[in-house]
Amino acid sequence: MATAAERLAAWGLGLRYEEIPQQVVEAAKLHFLDTIGCGLAAHAMGIATEGRIMVAEQAGTPDATVIGLDRALPGASAGFANAMLCHGLDFDDTHPASVAHVSAVVSPVALAAAEVAGKAGRDLVTAVVLGNETVIRVGMAAPSKFHARGFHPTSICGIFGGTMATGYLSGTDQQAMTSALGIAGSFASGIFAYLDVGTATKPMHPAWAAQGSFYANRLGQLGAEGPPTVLEGRFGIYHAFLGEYIDMEPQLADLGSRWETPRIAYKPYPACHYIHGSLGATRSLLGQVDVADIEDILVTLPEAGVALVTEPEVEKRAPRTDYEAKFSLQYSTAAMLVHGHVGVQTYTAAAIADPQVLAVAAKVRYEIKDYSTYPGSFPGGVVITLKNGRKLLAELDYQKGGPENPLSADEVLEKWRGNASLALTDAEVTRLEQTILAIEEHADLRAAFAPLATARAGVAA
Amino acid sequence: MATAAERLAAWGLGLRYEEIPQQVVEAAKLHFLDTIGCGLAAHAMGIATEGRIMVAEQAGTPDATVIGLDRALPGASAGFANAMLCHGLDFDDTHPASVAHVSAVVSPVALAAAEVAGKAGRDLVTAVVLGNETVIRVGMAAPSKFHARGFHPTSICGIFGGTMATGYLSGTDQQAMTSALGIAGSFASGIFAYLDVGTATKPMHPAWAAQGSFYANRLGQLGAEGPPTVLEGRFGIYHAFLGEYIDMEPQLADLGSRWETPRIAYKPYPACHYIHGSLGATRSLLGQVDVADIEDILVTLPEAGVALVTEPEVEKRAPRTDYEAKFSLQYSTAAMLVHGHVGVQTYTAAAIADPQVLAVAAKVRYEIKDYSTYPGSFPGGVVITLKNGRKLLAELDYQKGGPENPLSADEVLEKWRGNASLALTDAEVTRLEQTILAIEEHADLRAAFAPLATARAGVAA
Repeated sequence: MATAAERLAAWGLGLRYEEIPQQVVEAAKLHFLDTIGCGLAAHAMGIATEGRIMVAEQAGTPDATVIGLDRALPGASAGFANAMLCHGLDFDDTHPASVAHVSAVVSPVALAAAEVAGKAGRDLVTAVVLGNETVIRVGMAAPSKFHARGFHPTSICGIFGGTMATGYLSGTDQQAMTSALGIAGSFASGIFAYLDVGTATKPMHPAWAAQGSFYANRLGQLGAEGPPTVLEGRFGIYHAFLGEYIDMEPQLADLGSRWETPRIAYKPYPACHYIHGSLGATRSLLGQVDVADIEDILVTLPEAGVALVTEPEVEKRAPRTDYEAKFSLQYSTAAMLVHGHVGVQTYTAAAIADPQVLAVAAKVRYEIKDYSTYPGSFPGGVVITLKNGRKLLAELDYQKGGPENPLSADEVLEKWRGNASLALTDAEVTRLEQTILAIEEHADLRAAFAPLATARAGVAA
Repeated sequence: MATAAERLAAWGLGLRYEEIPQQVVEAAKLHFLDTIGCGLAAHAMGIATEGRIMVAEQAGTPDATVIGLDRALPGASAGFANAMLCHGLDFDDTHPASVAHVSAVVSPVALAAAEVAGKAGRDLVTAVVLGNETVIRVGMAAPSKFHARGFHPTSICGIFGGTMATGYLSGTDQQAMTSALGIAGSFASGIFAYLDVGTATKPMHPAWAAQGSFYANRLGQLGAEGPPTVLEGRFGIYHAFLGEYIDMEPQLADLGSRWETPRIAYKPYPACHYIHGSLGATRSLLGQVDVADIEDILVTLPEAGVALVTEPEVEKRAPRTDYEAKFSLQYSTAAMLVHGHVGVQTYTAAAIADPQVLAVAAKVRYEIKDYSTYPGSFPGGVVITLKNGRKLLAELDYQKGGPENPLSADEVLEKWRGNASLALTDAEVTRLEQTILAIEEHADLRAAFAPLATARAGVAA
């Protein structure tokens, strides 16, 4: 009986571009575009750039493009720098049922690995799909369980998808691929300690997973040994990180027929996904409420989100850092009500000191609510009580950007253009957009992605 | 109230060579020597060399010496390659009460970081002590608890010591050092999945922790943020990896007065430390038993060792890989009885196929026994029943090589010479030994450790 890692390796290495449904290909390209856009915006704002500085100092073989760096670096280094940037604003996508920021690991890894191997756009798309599906299945096997223990599935599950993507692109054979997945389990990490004081540590999680993906794959190729029972085994990742046996069969039986990539949720707001349901509900009330009239604001959310976005209440009402503000439903709700929108400029050092927003944030209380749509989506609601006693209610069972309440392709492109234009000229934005949306027709990826290297910085953060 | 990471950072960055008791300095140098010897032997035998091949391919700034490589590499890469080699034979030391292979992370990291920063031998020794004490305290706060959950403290606790060592040597300030320790928590990894089928995955654990030590420190220096509550905090490493609050106060209150470095245990045998008690007991009976007369062998060990070294019994009696043999008390006991000694040649592909040894291994049963000396040491025993009915008994409450049953300095040097001479000429062995034992008098570490780069390989593994 083959192990889960063996089955993933066998399926993944055999996958051909032609076998992927067109709708999945389109979704993969759009998510890749969105992810790169998030990375460009972070670069423009000077956010999460420390990884790039560090790996640039180390130098090394000039194999892969780095956002905002005038020279190429080894694949692992480019993966680290770009993944950190792409997750820097926490504006990148999340797969709800696995609660993993899928693309923040997979997209940068696949791009760098494709460049290292001199692969074409079709291979890149295939590797992105493969990586996405792997991360998601490892995560979906244990929904919400990593979070419940204080572990971050984005990186812990992410490294398996990144490893598969690099393996596919670099011609790893099946035995070495299985070993590489086994090694990835020993490199898997990521905890939620950053929530305590709002430090911007999380962008380093996909970065470290990206680096680990390259290392695990290459070590496997070179003959280093990893355990094939790394997932479901008696000492595998579920045993260690969750303390229980997890049956992966439901996630393996339909490989190649069920595709989860189109179910990855975009973020309309550069904030924690647990905020999105309630914040979208508040947005729907914007035309009906004047901030001066508000007496009280009650936001509701699933219990799993409380530790991330509403507690401790004192700090969440007056975030100490711009990063902590991204994990504050109270602050985000207030910003939406005061400014009428929430975007990258909502979470800057200047913005979080705005007394008008903080005064409204102080009025935000929260309540836990059971939503039948959680996990699987990020629902939430709001009840705004006005000084005249009138109550305004709104609920979003499915947050905007998820598969049940989707961003249209045009809305995704609008988000991309807003992010990319912070770092690229309008002509570059258009050209790179056209390139990525037709990436399967491009053979020279280094040339295709050259604009990333020359992206400009200097937008106030 | 300062957090545990803040207190470790404050103490560590303020430590001066002159404050370290001479006995601790001597122990630190001897452990460093032992660790480098283990790395040289692995190199000579071509074991755990994949990490070196990989990082050499990436190239980069030529800052730090790599065992068996004719060119220098970035500190993080040298740390990865050397740590993997030093743990490759599982012949390196362990601190019993923290159950961590302390030196496998700290020694390679400190050496590379000292070279990168152009520091002298005194700084290297101070950083080694600092790194050792940090790993040990993080581990001792939760004795055996990481193992119980399936996590490997060598790397999970090790990265904190490695990060502190690099921080000390590279002039990190206190706030950045605290951030670096916070980031290290997000990079901390290592599971026991490799035990399932005996894959040689574990040497990559200290390697990854070494790489992460450099990254965490440099990211902290560059201003990337890590949570100061990474250890004891509500989402810190003890919460995540162990699921409980751990009070670090007992490990912090006596920093600078209690020194654990002299309590790190040497391994006389290149096998799991849980084997050492029982194997030493068997060794004490060697003169009294002829293999042909043996009817039955009963080994005893603490329960915590069973999953590592005696179960599953079928595989442990006939190890499938040379690496698995290092984690088989049954095989190791048989090899000791048949050959009269256990060394690096006991765990080769040829040796584990020896039918005479396997026939004796098939007679080895095990029983769990409570030892008052566990945890804190690696006790064990043996009862050999001869065909004439006579029983031979031996027990070791304290395994050979630990502080209660120590290897003498001469015995450590004998082990070093045996290992180092596999890769160096006799003159080089002598010179490097003299260099390391007086390293506090050397200013040019790159010159001092040049023989590592030219070490020869080619010993049959």
